[in-house]
Amino acid sequence: MVNAMEAAIIRDAELHIETRDDPTPGSTELLVAVHAAGLNAADLVQRAGFYPAPAGSPPDIPGMELAGEVVAVGSQVTLFAPGDRVMGVVGGGAQATMALIDEAHALRIPPSMPWPEAGGFPEAFTTAFDALFTRGALTMGERVLISGAAGGVGTAAVQLAAAAGATVVATVRDEARRADVAELGANVAIGPESVAEHGPYDVVLELVGAPSLTSVLPHMATEGRAVVIGVGAGSKVELNLFQLMMPRIRIGGATLRARTRTEKANVARAVTRHVLPLLEAGRIRVPVCDTYPLADAATAYERFGTGKKFGKVVLVNGA
Amino acid sequence: MVNAMEAAIIRDAELHIETRDDPTPGSTELLVAVHAAGLNAADLVQRAGFYPAPAGSPPDIPGMELAGEVVAVGSQVTLFAPGDRVMGVVGGGAQATMALIDEAHALRIPPSMPWPEAGGFPEAFTTAFDALFTRGALTMGERVLISGAAGGVGTAAVQLAAAAGATVVATVRDEARRADVAELGANVAIGPESVAEHGPYDVVLELVGAPSLTSVLPHMATEGRAVVIGVGAGSKVELNLFQLMMPRIRIGGATLRARTRTEKANVARAVTRHVLPLLEAGRIRVPVCDTYPLADAATAYERFGTGKKFGKVVLVNGA
Repeated sequence: MVNAMEAAIIRDAELHIETRDDPTPGSTELLVAVHAAGLNAADLVQRAGFYPAPAGSPPDIPGMELAGEVVAVGSQVTLFAPGDRVMGVVGGGAQATMALIDEAHALRIPPSMPWPEAGGFPEAFTTAFDALFTRGALTMGERVLISGAAGGVGTAAVQLAAAAGATVVATVRDEARRADVAELGANVAIGPESVAEHGPYDVVLELVGAPSLTSVLPHMATEGRAVVIGVGAGSKVELNLFQLMMPRIRIGGATLRARTRTEKANVARAVTRHVLPLLEAGRIRVPVCDTYPLADAATAYERFGTGKKFGKVVLVNGA
Repeated sequence: MVNAMEAAIIRDAELHIETRDDPTPGSTELLVAVHAAGLNAADLVQRAGFYPAPAGSPPDIPGMELAGEVVAVGSQVTLFAPGDRVMGVVGGGAQATMALIDEAHALRIPPSMPWPEAGGFPEAFTTAFDALFTRGALTMGERVLISGAAGGVGTAAVQLAAAAGATVVATVRDEARRADVAELGANVAIGPESVAEHGPYDVVLELVGAPSLTSVLPHMATEGRAVVIGVGAGSKVELNLFQLMMPRIRIGGATLRARTRTEKANVARAVTRHVLPLLEAGRIRVPVCDTYPLADAATAYERFGTGKKFGKVVLVNGA
């Protein structure tokens, strides 16, 4: 007998809430009763039809991160058991009452962490950690610019960079949110028009897109590293290669979703080792901007799309 | 009493051969009787007035690399003595019969190495080593594209990449020179129109410029690294940042000349440790395309500018 879950479904570029059979865990997968699932910019792109889920993920159920309780496990699972509280990044399918996650991609939720925060943690902190440290090689004492710091990834990046001993400059277009971002650990939170005054930057985490990157490049330090992970404001840049050669800087980019199972497992292991201890110690937190029940997913997407957020928008199930 | 040397002098964007007082070594410098000095693309740019020598180097005597015999040393010099055969990268002044080099930037010339090869070694091999390994993080088993492989840096890069266990794809526009480049250790030497067929590339060493880089980017491997050190064909690129994000690639650039004394010393130490042993073992060599006496420096520049070289153009002094 198969139980029936509720799920957000993308059809004709619109969200619908429908009933589906519960998914069946593969040998290394956990079946999770989802309590919270954060929204990400990619969800809106996927809804519009431009960012299909990777192979092996539900093609029409969005949702790239989840937090919930394990209710069943595959035959090869060794790390988790029913009843465990887990969170993690998934290829899709999180915006439902039940979802699957590979045990290698699951993180254990600290006991005191509320569900909405757990549901908004995985994608933002994994993306920020990977971009700042694995791509950008940020280290103690360096100066980092977080370009577009008020959203989910930005608020995560500010906290992680500060915790690692970097000097953090954060740009936040909405002046009303700058104090909140500074309170997370940014040494200064400024408007994007002021980046020239606070450089040079050893690392730039670009969350806004091409126009922002273009304005920042002249203010990078020798051997600086720019990492592009958000291009909402545009993806096309004109670049003079001399800008890279003389100061020996580099520009890279990354996404999480286009990775293999093993690559995702490696990132999850790195987050377990380097980020979860900070979470358990209360040194980092997940600012949750708004929560919506799954039934109001379409409204949540609209809220996400209007911007002016501080932290995460999260879908929640149950009480 | 001050001796008089001959030197190439840039005046009004033209080269002249004139007599100057010998330079006086500073406390950490060697005075070198120059036997050979390789030409580099930057010399032609400097002659045209667009690439001034760094502070501390002769402003109007070109020449970024030299090989010769030490004839006097500064008061703090400990590593070399008069009579030693040295070669190295300098900020300028090499295209003369006498020149200065900081002892921290000087390399010992293997006994059997002829002067013209020694004069053409430092800039090309230092640049190629730094770009491939320090910037590009090339390692054994990876596939590297050397884009524009027939010149000084290109022929150095092909040999170093092959020696490090990489699979080497070399582009050479002039079909007649492809066999020579393959003989240096390239697994295949192709025309630039064929790069798509031999990828994906973990590392791209871009020696041609913007049009070449643009054509290569779609053929880079996941987590690939492009290093731009030559832009003779143009420096302006249009880039879609998605091209960097999905495959997690990065683009960097470098020059040698814009570095501090300590940075240059570190590079020279790395070349001493990682490249000179290959030279001494006969595993790498300096292809010298043409030599000219210093008096014919202007002719040598013309030769350099016409392209179709295999390896280095070198100015030589004495018998």
